[in-house]
Amino acid sequence: MNLHDRATVVDGLQISNWSRPVLEELRAGGVSAVNATCAVWENAADTLRSIGQWLELANRNPDLVFLAKTGDDIDLAKQQNKVAVFLGFQNASPFEDDYRYVEAFHRLGVRIGQLTYNNQNLLGSGCFEAQDAGLTRYGRVIVTEMNRVGMLIDLSHVGHRTSREAIEESADPVAITHSNPLWFFDSPRNKPDEVIRALVDRGGVIGCCLYPTVSGGEHVTLRSFCEMVRRMAEQYGAAHIGIGSDCTRGWNQEFVGWLRNGRWKPTDPQHAPSWPQWPAWFKGPSDFPQLTEGLSAAGLDDQTITAILGGNWSRLFSEVMDVVKEPANV
Amino acid sequence: MNLHDRATVVDGLQISNWSRPVLEELRAGGVSAVNATCAVWENAADTLRSIGQWLELANRNPDLVFLAKTGDDIDLAKQQNKVAVFLGFQNASPFEDDYRYVEAFHRLGVRIGQLTYNNQNLLGSGCFEAQDAGLTRYGRVIVTEMNRVGMLIDLSHVGHRTSREAIEESADPVAITHSNPLWFFDSPRNKPDEVIRALVDRGGVIGCCLYPTVSGGEHVTLRSFCEMVRRMAEQYGAAHIGIGSDCTRGWNQEFVGWLRNGRWKPTDPQHAPSWPQWPAWFKGPSDFPQLTEGLSAAGLDDQTITAILGGNWSRLFSEVMDVVKEPANV
Repeated sequence: MNLHDRATVVDGLQISNWSRPVLEELRAGGVSAVNATCAVWENAADTLRSIGQWLELANRNPDLVFLAKTGDDIDLAKQQNKVAVFLGFQNASPFEDDYRYVEAFHRLGVRIGQLTYNNQNLLGSGCFEAQDAGLTRYGRVIVTEMNRVGMLIDLSHVGHRTSREAIEESADPVAITHSNPLWFFDSPRNKPDEVIRALVDRGGVIGCCLYPTVSGGEHVTLRSFCEMVRRMAEQYGAAHIGIGSDCTRGWNQEFVGWLRNGRWKPTDPQHAPSWPQWPAWFKGPSDFPQLTEGLSAAGLDDQTITAILGGNWSRLFSEVMDVVKEPANV
Repeated sequence: MNLHDRATVVDGLQISNWSRPVLEELRAGGVSAVNATCAVWENAADTLRSIGQWLELANRNPDLVFLAKTGDDIDLAKQQNKVAVFLGFQNASPFEDDYRYVEAFHRLGVRIGQLTYNNQNLLGSGCFEAQDAGLTRYGRVIVTEMNRVGMLIDLSHVGHRTSREAIEESADPVAITHSNPLWFFDSPRNKPDEVIRALVDRGGVIGCCLYPTVSGGEHVTLRSFCEMVRRMAEQYGAAHIGIGSDCTRGWNQEFVGWLRNGRWKPTDPQHAPSWPQWPAWFKGPSDFPQLTEGLSAAGLDDQTITAILGGNWSRLFSEVMDVVKEPANV
């Protein structure tokens, strides 16, 4: 059995249009677990609908997928040749203005929550705002509540100051599920050393991201991407590096307009956003084996590669999620 | 220890305005478990808010209350001197037109659902409609889905024909959590023999109800109420009889208008509904011990009384709720 098949692979984020064929792409790529986005701009009611769709998809494909509750479910999925889906939010919009929704959505299966998505919201600033005033009063309450119930905090699309303050506020280690260092590619979505360093110092994990607009577009090479991973492992410690592909399988062109503009801004039909081109060596989750080969070619040893492909996410997910969250009898 | 203290008491339904003092009334009355209404006319989003309030109340009072998941939680509550709360709907309004919300709300803790509340809805007819055309196409889907996830079906405010068809459609035994036989008191909320008989034949339980408008008002005596219980035990078998007080503690006068009219009808201020007067021997859940004494005085033996006070609900709740509801790994 080759290294990729032996490894337990976890993808730090995908925002695909989920269906059996898309899930089969993950299995074909040897991916045992994924943080699957189920809300970006949706409010609580919209998100309930979205989770209902996930329940149905999981119920219809029990041979292929299940909704994960704990970090231990990753190993279970690997053993059973299934995909453990960790439902995740890319925005705090489903929490609206009610901190009690954190526990409610946790009960519904949500295990990962990004604090902001590009824009300022009730919790803090997104990474595309010109000014970042940091974590808000409500943002601090939500961080504490996410810690309590065992929901992993994600800072990928969060502003730098809000990110630093959330790392400091959180009792648990946090994640950047899908971003790269600024030195690799200059984008507001990527992170300065001070943010990554603070996250690593508190035990967090950053997922190196293949999405073209944060990795360098269709011309980024497997070699340069894997060199980045190797250098990050040296700089921050291999225990703090993961992969977050940010795959967007199965969507039409309209969806990228929804991601960028939601309902907060009209999309100009003359300049409607379109999906970026992915590099030839990574078109989707079925290409994960190539990434493993690239990491080997970059000189990383098997143990380090196994940790980066999934071991580090497993450790972090278990540390945050496998907690007793309810009082009384549970 | 007297009979009441030895018994595990389960209240088939309360729609109180929940707070620590109201929960303490239950404990004072020796009530170990209750079906607590968290939606009557609310849609999905409103109900999410309502469940959020319950999560907070439970988290703040872990010495007194917990949200139950299975029938076994009733015995646990008795052992711990706590109240096990089974969240319940008195209407299918939270399911809106999406059958997937059944599993979603089950994940949120909802364990009992009444199919209709007084009026026609998407599932069938309520008990105050002039015509009852029976269980609808969507109603049959919801019954099947409630069976699948382990949510107990309640027919208390459901029309007679819809009730009979739901009993027939359901693979699991069902409940009438809070109604009396028509022969005891003539009200559309009470049940003809044919409905109770069909429910009993399939293993269901009917909760004798103390709410004044279905039990005979403030002048109903403990003796006549307990005579009714005794006669029902003889007629239908003691294993199929329970208690559902329908207590409404802690509400203001406006709330009874909400129960009757919701948002579907304006309330005439000149003829606004008001709460009925309860009999002196049962003003609230702390009066449960008197009921036990009355059942003894009516000539029922201790074993029968214990079954009626809670043993029958425990058996039914376990039979319906303690099922493996999710595929895959749960």
